[in-house]
Amino acid sequence: MENYRLFLSAFCAAAITGSLSIIFVLIWVLHYREGLAWDGGSAEFNWHPVLMVAGLIFLQGTAIIIFRLPWTWACNKQVMKWIHACLHLLAFTLTVISTVAVFDFHNTAKIPNMYSLHSWLGIAAVILYCLQIVVGVVLYLIPITPVSWRAAFMPVHVFFGTLLFVGIISVALMGITEKLIFALKSPKYSQSPPEALFVNVLGVLLVAFGAIVVYTVTRVSWKRPNDQVLHSLHTDEVGEDNGKVGPALTQLPETADAEASDVRKRSSKQDENN
Amino acid sequence: MENYRLFLSAFCAAAITGSLSIIFVLIWVLHYREGLAWDGGSAEFNWHPVLMVAGLIFLQGTAIIIFRLPWTWACNKQVMKWIHACLHLLAFTLTVISTVAVFDFHNTAKIPNMYSLHSWLGIAAVILYCLQIVVGVVLYLIPITPVSWRAAFMPVHVFFGTLLFVGIISVALMGITEKLIFALKSPKYSQSPPEALFVNVLGVLLVAFGAIVVYTVTRVSWKRPNDQVLHSLHTDEVGEDNGKVGPALTQLPETADAEASDVRKRSSKQDENN
Repeated sequence: MENYRLFLSAFCAAAITGSLSIIFVLIWVLHYREGLAWDGGSAEFNWHPVLMVAGLIFLQGTAIIIFRLPWTWACNKQVMKWIHACLHLLAFTLTVISTVAVFDFHNTAKIPNMYSLHSWLGIAAVILYCLQIVVGVVLYLIPITPVSWRAAFMPVHVFFGTLLFVGIISVALMGITEKLIFALKSPKYSQSPPEALFVNVLGVLLVAFGAIVVYTVTRVSWKRPNDQVLHSLHTDEVGEDNGKVGPALTQLPETADAEASDVRKRSSKQDENN
Repeated sequence: MENYRLFLSAFCAAAITGSLSIIFVLIWVLHYREGLAWDGGSAEFNWHPVLMVAGLIFLQGTAIIIFRLPWTWACNKQVMKWIHACLHLLAFTLTVISTVAVFDFHNTAKIPNMYSLHSWLGIAAVILYCLQIVVGVVLYLIPITPVSWRAAFMPVHVFFGTLLFVGIISVALMGITEKLIFALKSPKYSQSPPEALFVNVLGVLLVAFGAIVVYTVTRVSWKRPNDQVLHSLHTDEVGEDNGKVGPALTQLPETADAEASDVRKRSSKQDENN
């Protein structure tokens, strides 16, 4: 992997900021707010930020960068796709519970639903996320889909996935802003009590996590090499199967890797000229 | 240009959503709010959303996609870089005025500055935007910078520019949320008065504008071809200078274009395999 040290730093930074985000949101609701319960009150609302940060931000971020982890490159691509899909499905399940919690809280407290920009963009993001999962499963996990369709849709799948992830972090920041203004009364948000500062830091952590994940996923040279190359590398390394796959495949890593590196070099040369 | 119709649709959609955003923010402050003035009151605050939407969102978005417009490909790259830089500098100037307006309003009304997540992320974005401009000017407009430095920094320049643009739209959405909660008292934001719905639509327009700009700028096949190819294409088209540039350059478009197209095809083949 090109610039492995930088990748490792980015990976560690993502793991730290992502984990800290979950710890911060838990401290927020358990220490500063009413804790967690399922009673239609504020403690039920608190599941909303906790499950959104853990699911739609941390788990989705993990699902997005999982193909970039070089330790997984020896695994079968189909297995990795399943892990990717399962992480997204788990994130979506937590999102549904989190959304039910906030509607339940609003209905009990007679607060209107769906009036704020946070709720408009939030529900749009959840619907689009669901669609993204359905289309992703149909195209990439059901073996009947023609390869040409998969290939044609891949850039769209990657673009919308990344855009949704970034959009969801924006929606979370709006949610934090709303909650702090509504919840902090004496002292108010503008008087910067410890809770306000603490939750602002949570917002900064979410932005940092999002930025690192997007950086990792958009860096072309960190892409998972294609499976043929990997299979060949693997069989070469293990020192068996060479007889079975024949010389053509055992020679592949060198040529294919050289080709991939050549494409990258030429693409980066194009970048230089631009 | 590959898929020119799609590009044209994206360009028109960006122009429409971007222009509508400016019209909506003007209607908001002129029709629903206190108008525009420089008196330390609410009318001075109103410069903040107007100048941010016009400058840091619309002008920055325009500066970002300007290299993608095929009608500018015949222009000298250096000229385009200057236009790119000037648009960013104009956006930054409007940002400074917009920031002064909000500080002035806060100080007059004895509202604390810099307490909210919106202000934390907003000021960070403005500082990083300023740094991005300074580094961009030093590296790409001052001719003494070594070419190797320019090339090495280009992916970082593009990544941080796009990230800042997306981040700034998030900050704007948080600002809209704050303002609607604080300004709407009777009826309140939660009662969805016409102003609330109208400004929510402004938020949706900003998201749509941002998404289209990011899509346009991240689509590799819409990149400005390198200058050598363009110069050669141009001289071929005009039907003059062929004698001056000689046969080597006039033959360049075919080979260089083929090479560029080859790199793209091979990159997209890599995508398919992933």
